[in-house]
Amino acid sequence: MPKHVEFAALGGPEVLSFVEADPAPPADTEVRIAMKAAGLNRAELLFMAGRYLVEPQLPSRIGIEGAGEVMAVGAGVDRFVPGDRVAVTPAFKQDVYRVLGQVVNIPASALEPIFEGVGYTEAAGFWMAYGTAYGILVQAGGLRDGGGQVVVVNAASSSLGTAAFQIVRAHGGISIATTRDVSKASGLKEAGADHVIVTGAENVSERIMDLTDGKGFDIACDAVGGVEGDALAQAAGLGSTMVVYGRLAGDPAPVPFVPMLGRGLTLSGFHLSWSMLDHPERRKAAVAHLNAGLASGVYAPKIDSTFGLDAVADAYRHMASNTQLGKIILEFSS
Amino acid sequence: MPKHVEFAALGGPEVLSFVEADPAPPADTEVRIAMKAAGLNRAELLFMAGRYLVEPQLPSRIGIEGAGEVMAVGAGVDRFVPGDRVAVTPAFKQDVYRVLGQVVNIPASALEPIFEGVGYTEAAGFWMAYGTAYGILVQAGGLRDGGGQVVVVNAASSSLGTAAFQIVRAHGGISIATTRDVSKASGLKEAGADHVIVTGAENVSERIMDLTDGKGFDIACDAVGGVEGDALAQAAGLGSTMVVYGRLAGDPAPVPFVPMLGRGLTLSGFHLSWSMLDHPERRKAAVAHLNAGLASGVYAPKIDSTFGLDAVADAYRHMASNTQLGKIILEFSS
Repeated sequence: MPKHVEFAALGGPEVLSFVEADPAPPADTEVRIAMKAAGLNRAELLFMAGRYLVEPQLPSRIGIEGAGEVMAVGAGVDRFVPGDRVAVTPAFKQDVYRVLGQVVNIPASALEPIFEGVGYTEAAGFWMAYGTAYGILVQAGGLRDGGGQVVVVNAASSSLGTAAFQIVRAHGGISIATTRDVSKASGLKEAGADHVIVTGAENVSERIMDLTDGKGFDIACDAVGGVEGDALAQAAGLGSTMVVYGRLAGDPAPVPFVPMLGRGLTLSGFHLSWSMLDHPERRKAAVAHLNAGLASGVYAPKIDSTFGLDAVADAYRHMASNTQLGKIILEFSS
Repeated sequence: MPKHVEFAALGGPEVLSFVEADPAPPADTEVRIAMKAAGLNRAELLFMAGRYLVEPQLPSRIGIEGAGEVMAVGAGVDRFVPGDRVAVTPAFKQDVYRVLGQVVNIPASALEPIFEGVGYTEAAGFWMAYGTAYGILVQAGGLRDGGGQVVVVNAASSSLGTAAFQIVRAHGGISIATTRDVSKASGLKEAGADHVIVTGAENVSERIMDLTDGKGFDIACDAVGGVEGDALAQAAGLGSTMVVYGRLAGDPAPVPFVPMLGRGLTLSGFHLSWSMLDHPERRKAAVAHLNAGLASGVYAPKIDSTFGLDAVADAYRHMASNTQLGKIILEFSS
C-alpha cells in the first residue's frame, strides 16, 4: 500500500511519521498522481509547529508542492491524461490536500504541465520559489523589463532568494542580497546576486545607500520583519515598494513612517495563494513567463540537496539548521 | 512696523512672542503679502516643540498657510499683481518661509488665487486640510468617482477629517469617522461623517466590519499609528489601502502582516509637500478640483473658532486642548 507523511501532534520534524493507506478514487475535479519528487518549504516547519497562517487539523498531512506522473483523472478533468508529467503548485486548499505521499489526489486546477527536457527534481521545487519571487517582484513590486531597478532581498539564501536573483537579472535589474551568515556570501554571488550584505557585520541601510549612490532601493523583499525589516525600509528610494512576505524575526517591523512620508515608500504584502494563484489572470501571466524560462534554462532552480522519502525528518532538520542555500528536494522511489 | 510671530526656544505656545521688523523687499520670485488670516495646524505644535519632521532653526518663525492681499511682486513674478487676493499654500521651504506675520514675503509658486465670493477666513485654512485630504483619498488612496467606497478616518475631528467627509461624499463614497471623544460624535455627523465610532467605548475593527457587512474598508486614513492604527488595519477590505499621514500616538503601528498578506492591504504614506505639492501635475489636478469645489460651495471648510493675531498663543492652546472640531483661524487686523 502507498505511504504518506503525517503528524498527529505539533512540533519539529520528529513529529512526522509514515502511514500506509489506499487513497480514495479521485473525485470529479481531481487527478491521482504517482509523486516523483517534492520541494520542501519553511512554511511547512511553521505549519507542523502550529505557527503558520493556516492551522493544521490533527492528524495532518503535509507538503505543498511537487511533481509526478498522472495515474488517473476524475470524470470532469479534460486537461490531463494518464502518463502526463505534472507539477503540483500550491494552488489548493492547504487544510484538505497535501503532497507528501507516494500516491495523492490533487485538484486538476493546481497542476501545470512539465515541459519537455525539464526533470521532476527541478519541477518539484520550482513553483513556490519562482512563483512567489515573480509575484513579489513583478506583480506586487513593479519590476519592469529593462528598468535597471535595484532590488534588495533579505534572508536571501532561501530558495526564493536565488529565484529572485535570476528574475531580477532576466529583467535587467540589479540585486542586493542580505544574509546573516558570512559563509554564504560567495555562494549567493555564484547564485546570481550582484551584491551581498552580511547582516550584523555591516550596516544594511548604509550599505544599500552606498551601493546605490545614495538613491536607495526600488524594490525590497522582506521575509524577516522586526529590526531587520525596519533597517531595510530605511534605505527606501523615491517611490519605492517594499513587499512583505514573511516574518522570520517573529515580530513585525514598525510601520516605516519617515520613508513612507518622506520618500513615498509603499508597503505591500504577498502570499502566493491569496495574492496570485487565487487570481486566474495573474496566475496565467506568471505561469507563461516562468514555464518558458524554466524550459529555456533562463530560470535554473538552485538545488541545495536531495533526500529520499524515508529521510523526510532529516530533510526538514537540514532546513531548520539554516545551512542550506537553495531548494531541499525529497525524491520518491517508485 | 509690521510684527510677526517667532519663538527662540522649543516648547508649547508660551514660547511664542512678537517681533517688529520691516521685511526685506521681495526677491525676484517672491510676493509681498498683507496677511489677512492664517490657518493653524497641529504640525506647528510639533514644530515649536522640536518634534516635527522638519527641525526649527532658532529663532524661528512659524505658520504654513493663510490668505492675504498682494502688496508688491518681485521682478520675475507675472502671475500676480498688487491687490490680488491670494491663498498661501504650504508649498515652500518651511525652514525659510513662515506666514504668521502682518507682512510677509512668500514665493509666488506657493500662491493660488482666491476665487470670487470666497472669503479670506475660509481660504486661509482650506489648503492644508483639503489638499491633504484630497491627496490622501484620491491620489494615494484611490478614491474614485461613484465607486461607493468605504473610507475610514481616525482622529476625525481634525480639520482634515471634516474635509475628508466632504470629499468622500462628493465622490459618492461612505465615510466612517473615529474619535476618542464621545461628545464629538454628533458634531462629526453634522460635519458630514456617515458613521461615527467612539474609540475606547467601541471595538473599532469589529464596528467597521459590522458597518460594512464584513467586507472591511476600501481606504483608511491613519493619523494616529500605535495601537489605534493597528486596530484600523485589522478591518482592511480586499485590495484596500491604508494611507498613513501622522502618528499622534507617538509610536508607529506594527506592519499589519495578516491583512497585508491575507487581504492584499497596501500601506502608503502621505505628506502634502513631498507627496503632492512637489509634483506639479498632482498639484495642478488637486488645485483645479478643490478651487472649483470651494467656489461652488461643495467644499465648505468647517471653522471651529477664530482668534485675533495677538491671541496666537491662546489659539494654539485651544488646539492643544483637543476640544476643537474643524479649523482654528487667526484673523489679522490690518
